[in-house]
Order: sequence, then structure tokens, then C-alpha cells
Amino acid sequence: MEAGDFKDFAKAMTDYITEYLENIRDRQVVPSVKPGYLRPLVPEQAPQQAEPWTAVMADIERVVMSGVTHWHSPRFHAYFAAANSYPAIVADMLSGAIACIGFTWIASPACTELEVVMLDWLGQMLSLPEPFLARSGGEGGGVIQGTASEATLVALLGAKARTIQRVKEQHPDWTDAQILSKLVGYCNKQAHSSVERAGLLGGVKLRTLRPDNKHRLRGDTLKDAIKEDLKNGLIPFYAVATLGTTSSCAFDVLDELGDVCNTHDIWLHVDAAYAGSAFICPEYRYLMKGVEKVDSFNFSPHKWMLVNFDCSTMWLKNPRWVVDAFNVDPLYLKHDHQGAAPDYRHWQIPLGRRFRALKLWFVLRLYGIENLQKHIRKQIGLAHYFEEFCNKDDRFEIYEEVTMGLVCFRLKRNNEINEELLRNINGRGKIHLVPSKIDDVYFLRFAICSRFTENSDIDLSWEEIKSCADEVLKGVSKY
Amino acid sequence: MEAGDFKDFAKAMTDYITEYLENIRDRQVVPSVKPGYLRPLVPEQAPQQAEPWTAVMADIERVVMSGVTHWHSPRFHAYFAAANSYPAIVADMLSGAIACIGFTWIASPACTELEVVMLDWLGQMLSLPEPFLARSGGEGGGVIQGTASEATLVALLGAKARTIQRVKEQHPDWTDAQILSKLVGYCNKQAHSSVERAGLLGGVKLRTLRPDNKHRLRGDTLKDAIKEDLKNGLIPFYAVATLGTTSSCAFDVLDELGDVCNTHDIWLHVDAAYAGSAFICPEYRYLMKGVEKVDSFNFSPHKWMLVNFDCSTMWLKNPRWVVDAFNVDPLYLKHDHQGAAPDYRHWQIPLGRRFRALKLWFVLRLYGIENLQKHIRKQIGLAHYFEEFCNKDDRFEIYEEVTMGLVCFRLKRNNEINEELLRNINGRGKIHLVPSKIDDVYFLRFAICSRFTENSDIDLSWEEIKSCADEVLKGVSKY
Repeated sequence: MEAGDFKDFAKAMTDYITEYLENIRDRQVVPSVKPGYLRPLVPEQAPQQAEPWTAVMADIERVVMSGVTHWHSPRFHAYFAAANSYPAIVADMLSGAIACIGFTWIASPACTELEVVMLDWLGQMLSLPEPFLARSGGEGGGVIQGTASEATLVALLGAKARTIQRVKEQHPDWTDAQILSKLVGYCNKQAHSSVERAGLLGGVKLRTLRPDNKHRLRGDTLKDAIKEDLKNGLIPFYAVATLGTTSSCAFDVLDELGDVCNTHDIWLHVDAAYAGSAFICPEYRYLMKGVEKVDSFNFSPHKWMLVNFDCSTMWLKNPRWVVDAFNVDPLYLKHDHQGAAPDYRHWQIPLGRRFRALKLWFVLRLYGIENLQKHIRKQIGLAHYFEEFCNKDDRFEIYEEVTMGLVCFRLKRNNEINEELLRNINGRGKIHLVPSKIDDVYFLRFAICSRFTENSDIDLSWEEIKSCADEVLKGVSKY
Repeated sequence: MEAGDFKDFAKAMTDYITEYLENIRDRQVVPSVKPGYLRPLVPEQAPQQAEPWTAVMADIERVVMSGVTHWHSPRFHAYFAAANSYPAIVADMLSGAIACIGFTWIASPACTELEVVMLDWLGQMLSLPEPFLARSGGEGGGVIQGTASEATLVALLGAKARTIQRVKEQHPDWTDAQILSKLVGYCNKQAHSSVERAGLLGGVKLRTLRPDNKHRLRGDTLKDAIKEDLKNGLIPFYAVATLGTTSSCAFDVLDELGDVCNTHDIWLHVDAAYAGSAFICPEYRYLMKGVEKVDSFNFSPHKWMLVNFDCSTMWLKNPRWVVDAFNVDPLYLKHDHQGAAPDYRHWQIPLGRRFRALKLWFVLRLYGIENLQKHIRKQIGLAHYFEEFCNKDDRFEIYEEVTMGLVCFRLKRNNEINEELLRNINGRGKIHLVPSKIDDVYFLRFAICSRFTENSDIDLSWEEIKSCADEVLKGVSKY
């Protein structure tokens, strides 16, 4: 494809994208295709000769869009928000054109340095303590990971390295394998499944602890678990505090967990994947009280801060534990400036990395802090707007206090009826929700996802839910 | 940013990108900035109010380009090629607009299904055996990973799961920890550093074995290592065959390794990250002879097949070992079609994933198989063109047989003089190379990277190298 064709193709795609996004609420939010729908729509093999771009363009609706779940439709209330914005799309074009692999500083100084500075910008927006920022001149700093799952794993590996060294100083005769078999980490039973996976991957025990009645992990619970494990000869080394659980957006009491972890020299990692974006608004920072006590902090602007996937930002007070754990340094990657700037390949699981800081830079500048705050506040407002509907309808109850853009609700009936309600809602296909279950209570999750969502969209979603409830409850009264 | 502004911004960026790429050879390939160059060029904090896109556009040259290493310059000969093409950039725009997170089938059926079919297209282009393809109707199939490092780790975890189950059947009284401490994997001493990292991450022993005098791992070497380990009560479980090592692009003898692994029920994984793209040309498939004996096969179209990073394609004969190792299935991710289509979240380390199959689809259609083959053949031809120069100049020697787009060469002198030669070359800044070292022999790697490279570029690079050699050798004769 030559430059001229590229210009035409990019122009056509730009028009298509605006058409798609600006009218997205008119599309059926979840497609009605069955598994295997796509294969018959395309040839069995790649073409021998080049096709014109117009042929590809013509296939997008037929092949792709017919099977897309529209995450940016205001009718989409499943999972959590995923980011999507015009500035991020343009930034990715530039990233694709530069297409450097930023594993070391010399491999593209701008790629590393813009990331260092953007993580400082963003850290300041969240009021992260100075030891997390590179500008402080200390050891600390931030890095872009692919996902929160990777950040959890990276922190665990850092914690492992730190603890193994400490224990070896105390017990020079213990082998790595012996120490490893004694390590134990902790998280809320409601923590994301990736925490469990990080434990599996890292080959260490991870205990899930029982939260309080508001589904928050408390300091005393952690303290008791640590005491018990110490008594049994184990070595507590890592804890994950979840700020905004996936099931119900509950917040562990960080301030309490921080004290316990600091007392016992346990690496405390914060997973604020979704809710962390809200901390750019000062009024929500009470939820991260105690952040100065943690070792690493992660949230995903690719969820709620309008920076397209993937961009999960992580700050570390002492990155050297991670760097040392990962450092395998072949000659072809060595360079003269080692040490003067971070070589981010040591901060992450893969070796290669895209120029993702561009997305952050574009979004922060083209929205400005004020508009990003407005976006967060608006979405939380819409959640409360929906909450009101539930509160006003006697048949429904709110399952968890609404703090962010998620409303957990259910019919005041048994699980089966709520399951039927959800089947009904998703079966009609106008809106899309997913459920969750805590302590055997099944509930529906209504997440505000699209940046296009307005009050009138919530009105429509509520009408749909109400009408499905009417139907389900009519069925019930028959028995 | 509104739709109208986006159209203007995307148009301006499209023009900028064509200008950048079409004239990239005029830029200094590695910037002369020092660590810390960027921070003074931007404000200390993110702006409160939104800036116009024109302000961002105006900063790109000043802030970003002044610190970019131009991987797509025909003067860039470092590392290996990284992909960059117009079709991939446009595909990523669409991916950014749809911005679905394809962790399950229902989360966006098109995202999963286009990936399944594209991996079949690509698998056929490489003549991969049918058991690797989803179209065969068997268990096998392909998946897009972020990087080859992740593919190596995923395969290791699958191998671990498979072996632990087998051993438990034979020794029901052995614990997981006991088995784990006995597991041992193998790779060429010249394998990529990510193989060693995968072992570290997976908590298993990984032995690096000595290659033959052409730097290829041979079957007998592996057989001897296995015998020795079995004698010592260890459990051989995993081997990585590298097709195209990073240092010198050597090829392990897959056919031999396959026999040994099959005899001992060892999971054999192929890391063909760079060189795998060449297998779309039938004349290079002799290098992957024996591929029917392996369990998993990986290469990265984001290196040499014009699909922008990240897109590392991996095929598995029995993905269930990986799926089962990763399967932690919370309610909010369950759906009605489970089992009917792959849920790719179980095939990878992170949970989230972008719609990356679009890049493959666009590139395969807009180039066509013929043009992609032409691209590979042209780059290999350019490597041989450079090789000729070296061969004709008595002062130089070729360090490794040239098979792909990499020439390993050196002055027929000691390491120090070759180190000085490289310092000289990179110091002058016209072209960029990185070195490597095998068995204490230091050599220079000349990789054909840019898709814009022509014979005249090689002429220029050779002139530069020759002139640096003149200078270095003049210095030598002084002593």
C-alpha cells in the first residue's frame, strides 16, 4: 500500500469511525450471532494477490460489525467501562507510525522519557506521595503495564525477591526452594481472579481473606491471618488491597492494611484498576487514605480515564526489587546510558513494548484535568440517577453502597428469580448486563460504561429493566 | 474532543505520518539527546484546561521526534526488524474505535472469531500441520499473544500442567511441590533471554545446552542431558527449539529435537519469533522440518511480516493444558456459549485483550501472500548483498552463515578492535548497529530492518562501515 492509498484509506476509516461512534446507540448492543458465524463469511485462505482497500472497507459491516458487542453503546452496562476516545485513537496512529520497541532507553529515548514524565503528571493528578514519582529524585517511579493482572504479578515478583533476600540474611543456610515454600500472600476474597492467578504463576500460596459485611478487607482480619501463619512457620510477604472490587466495587480499608503490612515488612500492592481513575477528583481520595504506606499502586486509565487499551499505570517506591528479579542482560541490549534512565524491559513481564505514553499525553492535554474530572463525576452521577430508580421501586433493593459508576441491585426475591430477570434482559437484547454473586446472593451489576451515556439513556435502560421485571414477576405470581 | 475536531486531527496526523515515513531516511537514525532531555521540554504538570489539537501537533517534532530512534529508517540495522505498515495502522484505528475487551466469546464474538480464522489463514500460509489449525475440527488452534516471551511462558505453563498430571497418575503420593522441584526444561544456550525468564517465572529449572559449531541445538545433546537428569531423579518436561536465534539467527535442528522430545513425552515449543515469517516462502521451510512433532509453535508477525506490534502468533496442538492451568472462572465472566468457541482469556497471561486480529486481516488482504513473500525475499536478498561486500573485503569475515535478513560480521582482528569499530560507527550516528558475543567472540550484527531499504541504502551503510574500519585500523597500525 502506497502513501496515497493510505491517505484515502485513513480518511475513509476516520469517517467510518465517527459515524460508528456518534450513532452507536442505534446499534443492537450484543449481536445475535451464534458461535462459528464468521468463518463462512470470509474465504478459507488468505488471498494470493493484494486486494484494494475499498474491498476491506466494504467487508467491515458484513463480517466484523455483525459480530461486535458494542462496549461503547450507552446500552452496554456489563463488566466495567473500557476507555475509548478520539485523542487516544490519533495517538495510537502516531505510535504505529514510529513503531519503535522501547525495551531500553537507547532503543528510543522519547518512548522511555515521555513515559517517565507522563507517570509523574498522572501521579500528581492523583496526589500520589512524592516517593512514587520520578521527579522526587528518589528511586521511585511509574511504568505503563499492559493490564492490572500484569501489575499484580510484577508486584508479587518484586515482593518475592525482597523477602527472599531478607530471609536469606537471617537464615543463610535456607535454600530458595525452602523459603519459597513458606511464602504466603493475602488478598480479599473479593479480589480479582488475576490475584489468584498471580499466585499460581509465582508459585506461592495466596490466602483469600474474609471481608467485613461491606465486603472490605480489614486490618484486623489480615493481622489475625498473619499471626496464624507465623505461628505455623510461614513467611507472610505480600498483600493486595483492592480499591474497587470487580463484583461490587467495594474498597478495602487501605489505611488499616498499610499499618499491618508495615509492621510485618509485607509488600502492599494496591489494585485500583477501575476505581483509581476517580482519584483524580479530590472528593474520592478518602478511599485511598493510607496510600503512603504501600509499596506499589496500580490503576488502569484504559478503563475509566479515556485512554484506549492497553494502558495500566503502576507506581513503585523501590522498583529495584522488580528490576533485579527480571534482569537478564544480553549484550545486544546493553547500551552506554544504562542506569541514567530506566530500562523499562526490567519493569515488566514481556521484553517488547509499544510507545503507549503518547496516548496518555494526548488524552491529558486534549481533555485537560477539568474535563477528565467532569467525565468521572458525570458517570458517578448517572449511577446515582439509576440508583434512585431502584430505590423508588419497592420490588428492588440495592446490594452494595454506590460509590463509583456501578450499581449492584436485585429484586427482593430469591436468586432464581433474579437469574431469570437477567436472562430476560439480555435475551431481549436492548441492553446488556452481567451478574455477580457474593456469599450466595446473586445480583445484577449495572455499570455506566459509555462516555456517550446521558440521563435519557438511563431512563431507557431502567424502563427496559422494569418491563422485564414485570414479566418475570407476573410469571411468579402464577404459581 | 468532538467528531469534527477528530476528523481534522486524524487528517493532519495521516499527512504527518506519510511525510515522516516516506522521508525517514533523511533523519538522523539515533538521536543525540542525553538522558533526561525530555522533562524540560514539557510542563511539570498536566494542563487544567483542554488544549487545542494543533498545540499537540506542534509539539511532536520538538518533544517527541527529537528523541526518537527511527526503527524504520533504512539506516537502522540494530536488533531485528520491527513491523510497520499502512494497512496495520488503519486496522489499529478501527480496533481503537471498537475498543472491545475480547476476554470471552460473548464480550465480542467478532474479536474471537476473526482471530480463530486469521490464525488458520496464517497457519496455512506457513504450511503448519492440520492438528494446529482450528479448521481441522480437532482441539488445536491459534491465538495472538503480545510477545514471543509470553508465548514461551504460556507453553511452559501448559507443559508444567501436563507433566504434573502425568506424574501424579504414576505417583499419587507425590505433592505438587515435590514434583515441581524435579521438573527440568531445556533450551539452546543461544536461546532468547526470555526463555530463562520463563523458567524463573514458572519456578522451574531450565538448563541451557551447548549448541554445535553452527550454534544449533542438536538431538544428541538434548538426549544426553535428559539421560543425565533422569539418572538424577529429575523430570524432563519442556524444551524450547529456537528457529533463528537473536544473536546470530541460527536454527536448532528441530527434526532431531522432535524425536527426542516425543520419545520422552516432553513438551516441545518452537520460538521462531523473527525467522518464522520467512516460512511463508516454501524455500525456507526446510528450516522447520519436523514441525509436526512439536506441541506449540510461535512466531511474531510484528517483527517481519508488516503487522504492527503487538501480534505474536502461537499455535497449540492441545490448548486445554494451558486453558486448564489458567482457568479461574468468576460468575461475571461466564456466558451461555462456553465451550462452543475459545475464551481466549484462558490462553494468555493477562485477562484483557485488544482486537488485534484486524491487523492481520488488513495486512494479509492488502498485501496478499505474494507481496508478503516478495518482502521477505527482498530483505534476505539485501542481506546477501551486504554479505558480498564483506566477503570481497579481505579485512572482514562473516561470523555466521547468512540465511535470513541478518549478517553477523567482524574485522579479522581481536574483540577490542571490533568493539572500537562499533563505537565508531554508532558514534558517527549515520547508521545504527548492535553487537553480540558468542563463546567470547565479539561480532557486529547488521540486520535489514526497514521495509524502505533498497540496494543504495546498503551501499551507503557499507561505505560508512568501511570508512569507520579505515579509521580504526589506521589507529591500530600506529602501535
